[in-house]
Amino acid sequence: MNPTVLGVIGTGRIGKMHADNLVRRLPEAFVKTVASRHVDYAWADRLGIPLAVNDFEVVLNDPEIEAVVIALSSELHVDAICRAARAGKHIFCEKPVAFAPGPIREALAAVHESGVRLQVGFNRRFDPSLVKLRQAIQAGEAGELQGLRIINRDPKAPDIEFVRRSGGLFFDFTIHDFDTARFLSGEEIVEVYAVGATLVDEAIAGAGDIDTAVIGLRLANGALCSIDNSRQTGYGYDQRFEAFGAKGNLTVDNLQSTTLSSSLESGVFMDGPADGFVDRYREAFVAELGAFVRGVRTGSPVVARGEDALAAVCAAQAATVSMRENRPVELSEIDRQSAVGGAS
Amino acid sequence: MNPTVLGVIGTGRIGKMHADNLVRRLPEAFVKTVASRHVDYAWADRLGIPLAVNDFEVVLNDPEIEAVVIALSSELHVDAICRAARAGKHIFCEKPVAFAPGPIREALAAVHESGVRLQVGFNRRFDPSLVKLRQAIQAGEAGELQGLRIINRDPKAPDIEFVRRSGGLFFDFTIHDFDTARFLSGEEIVEVYAVGATLVDEAIAGAGDIDTAVIGLRLANGALCSIDNSRQTGYGYDQRFEAFGAKGNLTVDNLQSTTLSSSLESGVFMDGPADGFVDRYREAFVAELGAFVRGVRTGSPVVARGEDALAAVCAAQAATVSMRENRPVELSEIDRQSAVGGAS
Amino acid sequence: MNPTVLGVIGTGRIGKMHADNLVRRLPEAFVKTVASRHVDYAWADRLGIPLAVNDFEVVLNDPEIEAVVIALSSELHVDAICRAARAGKHIFCEKPVAFAPGPIREALAAVHESGVRLQVGFNRRFDPSLVKLRQAIQAGEAGELQGLRIINRDPKAPDIEFVRRSGGLFFDFTIHDFDTARFLSGEEIVEVYAVGATLVDEAIAGAGDIDTAVIGLRLANGALCSIDNSRQTGYGYDQRFEAFGAKGNLTVDNLQSTTLSSSLESGVFMDGPADGFVDRYREAFVAELGAFVRGVRTGSPVVARGEDALAAVCAAQAATVSMRENRPVELSEIDRQSAVGGAS
Amino acid sequence: MNPTVLGVIGTGRIGKMHADNLVRRLPEAFVKTVASRHVDYAWADRLGIPLAVNDFEVVLNDPEIEAVVIALSSELHVDAICRAARAGKHIFCEKPVAFAPGPIREALAAVHESGVRLQVGFNRRFDPSLVKLRQAIQAGEAGELQGLRIINRDPKAPDIEFVRRSGGLFFDFTIHDFDTARFLSGEEIVEVYAVGATLVDEAIAGAGDIDTAVIGLRLANGALCSIDNSRQTGYGYDQRFEAFGAKGNLTVDNLQSTTLSSSLESGVFMDGPADGFVDRYREAFVAELGAFVRGVRTGSPVVARGEDALAAVCAAQAATVSMRENRPVELSEIDRQSAVGGAS
Repeated sequence: MNPTVLGVIGTGRIGKMHADNLVRRLPEAFVKTVASRHVDYAWADRLGIPLAVNDFEVVLNDPEIEAVVIALSSELHVDAICRAARAGKHIFCEKPVAFAPGPIREALAAVHESGVRLQVGFNRRFDPSLVKLRQAIQAGEAGELQGLRIINRDPKAPDIEFVRRSGGLFFDFTIHDFDTARFLSGEEIVEVYAVGATLVDEAIAGAGDIDTAVIGLRLANGALCSIDNSRQTGYGYDQRFEAFGAKGNLTVDNLQSTTLSSSLESGVFMDGPADGFVDRYREAFVAELGAFVRGVRTGSPVVARGEDALAAVCAAQAATVSMRENRPVELSEIDRQSAVGGAS
Repeated sequence: MNPTVLGVIGTGRIGKMHADNLVRRLPEAFVKTVASRHVDYAWADRLGIPLAVNDFEVVLNDPEIEAVVIALSSELHVDAICRAARAGKHIFCEKPVAFAPGPIREALAAVHESGVRLQVGFNRRFDPSLVKLRQAIQAGEAGELQGLRIINRDPKAPDIEFVRRSGGLFFDFTIHDFDTARFLSGEEIVEVYAVGATLVDEAIAGAGDIDTAVIGLRLANGALCSIDNSRQTGYGYDQRFEAFGAKGNLTVDNLQSTTLSSSLESGVFMDGPADGFVDRYREAFVAELGAFVRGVRTGSPVVARGEDALAAVCAAQAATVSMRENRPVELSEIDRQSAVGGAS
Repeated sequence: MNPTVLGVIGTGRIGKMHADNLVRRLPEAFVKTVASRHVDYAWADRLGIPLAVNDFEVVLNDPEIEAVVIALSSELHVDAICRAARAGKHIFCEKPVAFAPGPIREALAAVHESGVRLQVGFNRRFDPSLVKLRQAIQAGEAGELQGLRIINRDPKAPDIEFVRRSGGLFFDFTIHDFDTARFLSGEEIVEVYAVGATLVDEAIAGAGDIDTAVIGLRLANGALCSIDNSRQTGYGYDQRFEAFGAKGNLTVDNLQSTTLSSSLESGVFMDGPADGFVDRYREAFVAELGAFVRGVRTGSPVVARGEDALAAVCAAQAATVSMRENRPVELSEIDRQSAVGGAS
Repeated sequence: MNPTVLGVIGTGRIGKMHADNLVRRLPEAFVKTVASRHVDYAWADRLGIPLAVNDFEVVLNDPEIEAVVIALSSELHVDAICRAARAGKHIFCEKPVAFAPGPIREALAAVHESGVRLQVGFNRRFDPSLVKLRQAIQAGEAGELQGLRIINRDPKAPDIEFVRRSGGLFFDFTIHDFDTARFLSGEEIVEVYAVGATLVDEAIAGAGDIDTAVIGLRLANGALCSIDNSRQTGYGYDQRFEAFGAKGNLTVDNLQSTTLSSSLESGVFMDGPADGFVDRYREAFVAELGAFVRGVRTGSPVVARGEDALAAVCAAQAATVSMRENRPVELSEIDRQSAVGGAS
């Protein structure tokens, strides 16, 4: 069977990572074209990608290309999705799809109309530990779910230019946690209470954002979920997850890059967590594209759907209101149609 | 030097534990008399306690007795403190001292007037791991404190009679967490947001209480603290603590009773956490009484003061209002004079 | 019931520890007299021990004293046991009882003749983790036992005077491991192969001893056991144990004094293992004396018997021959009657 | 730069794994031809390998092929190496190269004469944890090396046909541990003492082999190394390594496939170690071929040399003699020229 022919739209850090994974790790995929404002011919050449262009219409107009990976600046995602959908291309789009429910609904409508697939870049849904945690929760290993705890902290604050364009902590960063709460629990978020602060870098406050947040979610089944965010740990990428139920507690701890441990006079020393998301979710990033390509070829159900992106953005919006008004906010306050097909 | 002569007032489960620790583990203490409504002569005899009476005035009127340990039903604590203070006895009183700030202030006034010592049963302040965590925080090992995470879950829901008399989850159980947040951080609590639910046992709702809570605290220095409570884990007594700062994260994990680990076909198995507070804080319970007796003998500063009890009860009251009204509540709303001398 | 009246013979470091445990931790015991060449009256007084003498015949001649704890220099143990046995005192004797099988047999004969109890200071037999490991092995949790691994390493080499009088590494230090192999497995040692070296301190070689050893044992059921010894780790007291069987592997890891763990830029840091045997086996030392006193009062079976000391010393002797001749040595080569009653 | 063109000789389980890694994970390699007695055309086709033949001379005679991966039955390795060397192909050969020093020397001579590269399949030399452990040892992190401990146990005994052709436990299985001891320490093995038994499966004894061994090595610098082997754990692939030195102890523990941990009423449960070598050393297998291909392209030094294979086989032979005669055997007894260039 011939490989699936893809184009990659946007070749910033994430776009290049996706292209690399498609080329090196997924033999059933063939990247024919990469498109970006500033074309990096040398990089494309090294990867053996035949065509590098600065206009992504070239990708959309190429009848040989079946599917696209979109990794542009977030504010350009909806437009690109709509155009790709109208061009009949299957779509993998990085998160966040947009910074408000309205545009996402617009994108979903275009996708729906054209009948293409849309998968969103919620990479954690493909992490082996989280997949196993979800399975254990769904299998009732810990009894009925009563609570979730998510710790999501970046190793180092991004530069202030990134912060300005990021859409804010809730939309750029916590968005993964809103999705993870839904993915793990299989439940919709019904209420959000968010407290935020700027404890890492004053410049982030100057850019109108926060760098630290504690967020409480109430899920549809009554379970309570806490999310702990920071833009900067100083000790690596902290990714820990817990599910507490009537019969037990399930935890997913940080992965260490090696198992070397040193017992010395001053104590026992081990490697810290991964340096960042590229390391921690290396295999998840391969797996999400593998699932996308396989889905394009076989029509299997999408695991990280546009509706999941919509639900997460609604929660981010609720968190924004909650923090501003210092009160819990029900999701029903947010302008939002029910996500189609549940939280899975 | 002669041992310090004590009386123990109240010989329920906790009172007996304290008496046992005084007799068996603290040679510098001598328990002369135990007083309780229902006298357990056989138990007192086995421990070699000379006198067991059903009227605690016998203890207060005994000039040989220098200090008392009060472990009555919580609603009787304030009266007992006031009478013991007027009798000139140094006082160790179990938590909660009372269910509202007013009575505690009354007790503190009596204590203050008589010049006796008052130590409160915040046993965690004497746990080696938590003492070391506090030292690491205060030494700035993790940089400036930005957040605390406290998980406090009991192995098994108490019987419903206990729940009815307990004063409610926040006053009976979370009270330790409010105190721990102040103890670890050295900061006052300025705002509380509490979400509660009855997920373990409907009968607890029938008794007007909750069995599950997630509580957010804002501390005076801006740090955010989350508290996770459940009356029942099914897997033992879950006591975990984290301090997140500008330069790192400090954790105190559950203690396992042995280090035996079994690698079998079905996976790796280890002991769970301790069965309950008696096991987990066994040495802390000895250490708190040791500190009390030593304090009586040497006049060293009190580590768990009446003012700490007052501050914790104010936080419990704020949590009660917060949950009822589903909004964050500032501690300044609660009728409360400033705690004397800070949060340490 | 009145407390059991004891005398402590020998008040070096270990003798004092035992006396302290009897006084402070075992209310059913009463230490009436301590005897030692250099009497420490101040210490005895602080502990409330009525009598401190420099002639242990005072202890043996006191009809009120039922039992003695012997913690002299090892070369004096056998004589003290024989005299205490003839005086009709029950005996707890520190390890090593002697440096050769012959004298131990002499002591056992005296004990047997007089009908007193003899318990040996194999403290590990009372450690909760090792007791649980033994139970798991005996219960077949790991299937039929195929191997044991014992790591026993001291934090810091003893001073050279101690080394000179110690009887050598195998008799003073590995003796615990020989006993542990028998205790855990319930099997006799049938062959020993020992390799030793002086890698820590040349002065130890000068004193005719080694500081490092790897020893292989073959047990009666065919299981293979490895022992890893060092006089000095630099990182604390390393005490680890593994049992490998047909269905799994059971491990007992080092105990850390607190569960504090620090995630910092340079990695994750935890406390190392205990500082030494006093810390690591604190509760085991209390428990062994508790079992001794209880045994005196109730006649319950002895857990660490004179025959166990004999078997361990035979293994130490075999190891000595093995190392000298660089060949495996069968225990049957060593002058030894079969231990009475098996390896338990 | 064009990819390096390779042929794979032998397509059993390991040969197929190597071919797969070359095709899917190493874009700088191109597998033109696979050769094996029983050609699996379907498999080769799925991987996109152009040519599948049953005569490996086709590979050796193809001038376009620069390098070969040899993964035949072990007894055919030496002949294949010699022929490939004479054909001027660079060679990656699976372990064991042979079952005796003589044939390996023959192969080394052919390699040396033709000037091709020879890399041996000591995959552990490319495992990130072991590479880091070696670096820490060489950097003196634990002080001067005094001891190594290697636990190497397979999850499940191989079928008896494999055992018969394997060359025996020491040559097929412990060979990795002999090499690891040299790799980690940078020291030559000078003495071996091996004890073996058949504790897993009597049929293995029937085939003239053992399934359990404890082996002691003395290294040139005086350090003592213990190796613990079993053909069957029942709980997965047990791969643990420790280095003990004058200042500390370094350990590499088993890798768990996920970090999920479940706290339930019956205890805490985690995943066991990997299912087998394919899982545990997945990345090491990719890395060793990556290093081979890179070496062919750049001429960088070989990490796992033919001389390393020779040294490991000599140790295996010494172990065989040691076990048969139940005595320690010096490596100088074994017919062997000094390995060229040390133990690294």
